[in-house]
Amino acid sequence: MIKIAVDLMGADKNESLLLSGVIDAIKENKELFVYILGTEEVLSPILKEENVNPDQYEVINCSDVVNNTDNPMEVFRTKADSSMIKGISLCSKTEDIEAFVSCGSTGALMVSSMMILRPLCPTLTPVLLCELLKKNGEYICLSDCGANLDCPADKILSFAKMGSAYMKAKGVENPKVRLLSNGAEDSKGTTLIKETNKLLRESSLNFLGNIEGSTVLTTDADVIATDGYSGNVLLKTLESGTTTVIKEISDYAQTLEGEEKEKLEAFASSLTKKYDYNTQGGAVLLGVKKPVIKGHGSATGDTVLSIIRIAYTLAKNNIVDKIKEEFGI
Amino acid sequence: MIKIAVDLMGADKNESLLLSGVIDAIKENKELFVYILGTEEVLSPILKEENVNPDQYEVINCSDVVNNTDNPMEVFRTKADSSMIKGISLCSKTEDIEAFVSCGSTGALMVSSMMILRPLCPTLTPVLLCELLKKNGEYICLSDCGANLDCPADKILSFAKMGSAYMKAKGVENPKVRLLSNGAEDSKGTTLIKETNKLLRESSLNFLGNIEGSTVLTTDADVIATDGYSGNVLLKTLESGTTTVIKEISDYAQTLEGEEKEKLEAFASSLTKKYDYNTQGGAVLLGVKKPVIKGHGSATGDTVLSIIRIAYTLAKNNIVDKIKEEFGI
Repeated sequence: MIKIAVDLMGADKNESLLLSGVIDAIKENKELFVYILGTEEVLSPILKEENVNPDQYEVINCSDVVNNTDNPMEVFRTKADSSMIKGISLCSKTEDIEAFVSCGSTGALMVSSMMILRPLCPTLTPVLLCELLKKNGEYICLSDCGANLDCPADKILSFAKMGSAYMKAKGVENPKVRLLSNGAEDSKGTTLIKETNKLLRESSLNFLGNIEGSTVLTTDADVIATDGYSGNVLLKTLESGTTTVIKEISDYAQTLEGEEKEKLEAFASSLTKKYDYNTQGGAVLLGVKKPVIKGHGSATGDTVLSIIRIAYTLAKNNIVDKIKEEFGI
Repeated sequence: MIKIAVDLMGADKNESLLLSGVIDAIKENKELFVYILGTEEVLSPILKEENVNPDQYEVINCSDVVNNTDNPMEVFRTKADSSMIKGISLCSKTEDIEAFVSCGSTGALMVSSMMILRPLCPTLTPVLLCELLKKNGEYICLSDCGANLDCPADKILSFAKMGSAYMKAKGVENPKVRLLSNGAEDSKGTTLIKETNKLLRESSLNFLGNIEGSTVLTTDADVIATDGYSGNVLLKTLESGTTTVIKEISDYAQTLEGEEKEKLEAFASSLTKKYDYNTQGGAVLLGVKKPVIKGHGSATGDTVLSIIRIAYTLAKNNIVDKIKEEFGI
């Protein structure tokens, strides 16, 4: 049995809607146990009505919620009864809970995870990574995608290692790592990028060199290492490019009629689903003692199902041990 | 009469093909005079055959060419007879030539322009900027898009000023400036971004705050200020996003038949043209004594026409004076 904790509060959608993802996850996986953090009187009746196996979950009632307007630096001290802080504390205290899932405030979740769960070792800076679906249907992991803005070269090297460990936990053997730069050659990049390139060349990672923004969705690589600022620019700009062209398709469909119009609208919707990096999956905080998976604030039941699957896979494949191996901890 | 110099060598396409853009530019604009740098025996017969007004051009024969494999740091010393160096030198020596256009090696063009044309004042760092076509058909200027990788805050402020001067020369009154960051709030960003935000707030520019990558093609702004590294990541990632989705449309079109298929293929082609930032226009080097407009290596006659129009507009509207005004030079 793999045990995880899931926080259903603080997102845009209400708890009962997000709960549908938990129910689907439990029903498809007999090896999963979920501590569900939320409002018991809302959640328990639904779980009973849906005949969810009571041996696979426990509802933990929470009387407070972390909001997006709360100061991320303070909630771990001031909101002990919130679903987020109660969930992270439970993970910290309970050895056999292996991952935490939440769609609440990103800042609060990151700070609280670092303060309560603590880094795997004192010198390790946790990283926020996410996966991008490439055109060929494979995923590439972007590490860091926004947590660490001012980074020296050795930190970016550690993001590459955690990205590599993540892809190993997802079943990729010897993940191919690339470094984001403004040119493919080793000689290209800022002073920081050139230093990082050198560290990556000297490391035991399967480092294939630099990558430019133009080829992130077509490259034969598994991990893009970068500082959190550039990673965030990359992630959001990709969204800008894909959504703008998808909107062009929708606009064009309006000039058509009948079946031709319907087919093209359906095609545009399928692309939105494929390339919507915000809602399709989650960002993963690694480098703290247990992996923390963050769903987007606008998450639906499907998103919750999807990020619980990620949490399960990471736990099942011992992501924490894989990270320790990379760092020789 | 506005005089500019155009280098037709060193690009992927041959001189006679690129010349068609020069011929179109001259024929559409009686106020334009072009010094054409290339192989006289190739160019002169075509210009005569096409009945181009001999009062609007002069061919300057060049016996050497700058290649992409040449060391950018050396060509301004070693290739004096190349079309690029001869053209830049001509601009430097001839007061009434107001702009230089080339589709040759970017690195060589930038270094040679800085060495021969020289910065407008010793403390000014030249910037490479480009325009992005937004979904609504308006343009936004990205400054810097790749020339200056390691930048302190005051340099990014100067890129904002040159971007603003550029948009003024293009007819935009009081251009709206935004700063690329990982969040819209002033408090978001790296230490560098926060410092730059402060300088922009204190400046006389029409600064509207930070912008995230996700809204670059939909924002109500005219200039995005950024360091050259992040600007380059943004530019290339945008390309990745748009071309990936356009390729999806082309693939989908192959599953259709007859007129429906043809219409969708034509639609995909129109989008490629609209969102291909590499070939649609040029990057502009500002901050040297005369503007230098760089077409992509894969430029066609249409690209040359398009970048000559930019050069003409910048010269006609006194871009150099507008930059001097911004900096109080």
